Amino acid sequence: MTTPTSPALDPIELHRRLQGKLAVVSKTKLTPETLAALYTPGVGEVCREIADHPDMATTLTLKGRSVAVVSDGSAVLGLGNIGPLGALPVMEGKAILFKDLGGLDAWPIVLSTQNVDEIVAAVTAIAPTFGAINLEDISAPRCYEVEERLQEALDIPVMHDDQHATAIVALAGLINAAKVVAKDLRACRVVVVGAGAAGSGLFRLLVDYGVTDVVLTDSKGIVEPTRTNLDAYKQRWAQLGNPRQLTGDVGVALAGADIVIGVTVPGAFTAAHIKTMASQPIVFALANPTPEIMPDAAIAAGAAVVATGRSDYANQINNVLVFPGLFKGLLAHNAPAVTTAIKLACAAALADLIPQPTADQIIPSALDPRVAPTVAAAVGSSL
Amino acid sequence: MTTPTSPALDPIELHRRLQGKLAVVSKTKLTPETLAALYTPGVGEVCREIADHPDMATTLTLKGRSVAVVSDGSAVLGLGNIGPLGALPVMEGKAILFKDLGGLDAWPIVLSTQNVDEIVAAVTAIAPTFGAINLEDISAPRCYEVEERLQEALDIPVMHDDQHATAIVALAGLINAAKVVAKDLRACRVVVVGAGAAGSGLFRLLVDYGVTDVVLTDSKGIVEPTRTNLDAYKQRWAQLGNPRQLTGDVGVALAGADIVIGVTVPGAFTAAHIKTMASQPIVFALANPTPEIMPDAAIAAGAAVVATGRSDYANQINNVLVFPGLFKGLLAHNAPAVTTAIKLACAAALADLIPQPTADQIIPSALDPRVAPTVAAAVGSSL
Repeated sequence: MTTPTSPALDPIELHRRLQGKLAVVSKTKLTPETLAALYTPGVGEVCREIADHPDMATTLTLKGRSVAVVSDGSAVLGLGNIGPLGALPVMEGKAILFKDLGGLDAWPIVLSTQNVDEIVAAVTAIAPTFGAINLEDISAPRCYEVEERLQEALDIPVMHDDQHATAIVALAGLINAAKVVAKDLRACRVVVVGAGAAGSGLFRLLVDYGVTDVVLTDSKGIVEPTRTNLDAYKQRWAQLGNPRQLTGDVGVALAGADIVIGVTVPGAFTAAHIKTMASQPIVFALANPTPEIMPDAAIAAGAAVVATGRSDYANQINNVLVFPGLFKGLLAHNAPAVTTAIKLACAAALADLIPQPTADQIIPSALDPRVAPTVAAAVGSSL
Repeated sequence: MTTPTSPALDPIELHRRLQGKLAVVSKTKLTPETLAALYTPGVGEVCREIADHPDMATTLTLKGRSVAVVSDGSAVLGLGNIGPLGALPVMEGKAILFKDLGGLDAWPIVLSTQNVDEIVAAVTAIAPTFGAINLEDISAPRCYEVEERLQEALDIPVMHDDQHATAIVALAGLINAAKVVAKDLRACRVVVVGAGAAGSGLFRLLVDYGVTDVVLTDSKGIVEPTRTNLDAYKQRWAQLGNPRQLTGDVGVALAGADIVIGVTVPGAFTAAHIKTMASQPIVFALANPTPEIMPDAAIAAGAAVVATGRSDYANQINNVLVFPGLFKGLLAHNAPAVTTAIKLACAAALADLIPQPTADQIIPSALDPRVAPTVAAAVGSSL
């Protein structure tokens, strides 16, 4: 593990030189002959074919390989609500990763509204162009309603990446981390610290995976049914997990826990908390760019396996391990939605890429070329 | 002039092989170093810069070179209302022309709604991503309201191509056709047959150019103030041109006219009509793919200069001569809207590319590489 380094290239200078980073190209050279087939007059035949057989749009247009990367700019990185233009560089960056790693053609769509009804209406209106919708950096709890309503309205998959991709990678990491410490993950006591999009997504996925004793906490303590300050979504989650019916703060949750995953802010749990956990504790400190606790401090407090969201430490839990391959698989199989079975299959396949995990390697690296094809195949096998 | 030929490449087979025709690419090779500057963690700095200075989005993201090609599929080519999926191949084709000829990065957006309020709301919502909006193949009269309301709502240019691009190219062609017959275009009697998007756009542009005696006809005759079956838009146009206050059918309009431009359906005017026109009549028969009257028949009836919308006859009035360069110029100069001055400057610049026009060459060919830079420069000089 090395100390953090700044990027060697100046980001603003590089963005200025490129004027952004995504471009479009024609898939074939334009000559009078190809133009006559791709545009007027030949294109009319293609239009009629699709009008008569709408399913043909996925093979005769970019729809079958295109993804909208949609954000309202309300929860961008650790920067908060910086609006659509501020969010655009991130969405453009996701689009080049979709292409480079998944072979998909993605386009950023940043929205001038943060109203749920208006977001749902706009994305529904533009959906015919796309084979799938990747929602990104939309703040909780609006993100849950936006995703649910869009998936209900559309016949293409809609996934809020912040909720599900990090969750899938974290689950893959936990499957391997449990092997490192020779524990049965489903029998572990697990605490998810942070009940935003990422935390709640991971919490729900752990429940779906079959972890019985999983506890979710937010800034006010354990999310449980006696709390009176829960929104409608947290009230749902208060009905899940927590079989010992714990109440109280994060310290109560962590005492005796096997695993803690932080998806919140620096300092949300500490070395003192880790010392109260069970033997060989697993610590995922995923706050970005500054983890809840730095890896060295976690190890000093007794952590057996540590993961973060950063590329400059071992075990980076990076959603790029999921979204290119997951969407590639969805589009390849015309999957209409992202099911729990798909998410679990992706996590298992990712974990399997590291057959002999160690404390320093529980997950593939972000640019490992095996990852996207493996995840895409997992989607296919789970349908 | 040759007889029409079918395209040598099978359009459906070519579209199937390419799975459409537009793709995205990263503008630079992705390495861990570039990725750290283009995505996390470096991109955060770019996001903050734009959040603090929104104008920087045009230089630090694709916004400054991106165009949305938006259609609701209600008036596609000569195919009519075939819906968004049927329209997608045309919009994708326009996007590759924007790139190939104008160097711009355009993305097709086809809409699942044909409701004016919903179209305006959806395009307004997604506008922050784009530097300009090209509306396409939206049926009249909804297209007028959609364009007007969007231009009012947005601070980027919004142009309905069907109304304005064909009009600009036709005006360029008319400027040179008038030279061929040694007439003063502004003093000519001009009749526009067809009062849809293209016809009304050309009619309004001819008025703006300074043609005094210009008459617009629709399927029921001359658009003039005593008519009781005009929609709100046609009522506006009935106040323009027509200084001799003609009433009646297309035959009344054409008797003694110097120029006729058809932008409607085959047979809307005939050889018999042309024979009633002034000496050396100019005939633009722009219905596509079948002109109002075939060029040979028009010439036999006395036409001195003939133009069509087709590539297999001389003098093709093709909107591709305008939209790539026009939008290139709009984006290069951060123009907030497409003004009359811009349209007139583009038409004049296009006409000037043929310094010595003849009956067989009044306009550059569609793939002439001088065209887009010339039109873009004209935009700049008109601001």
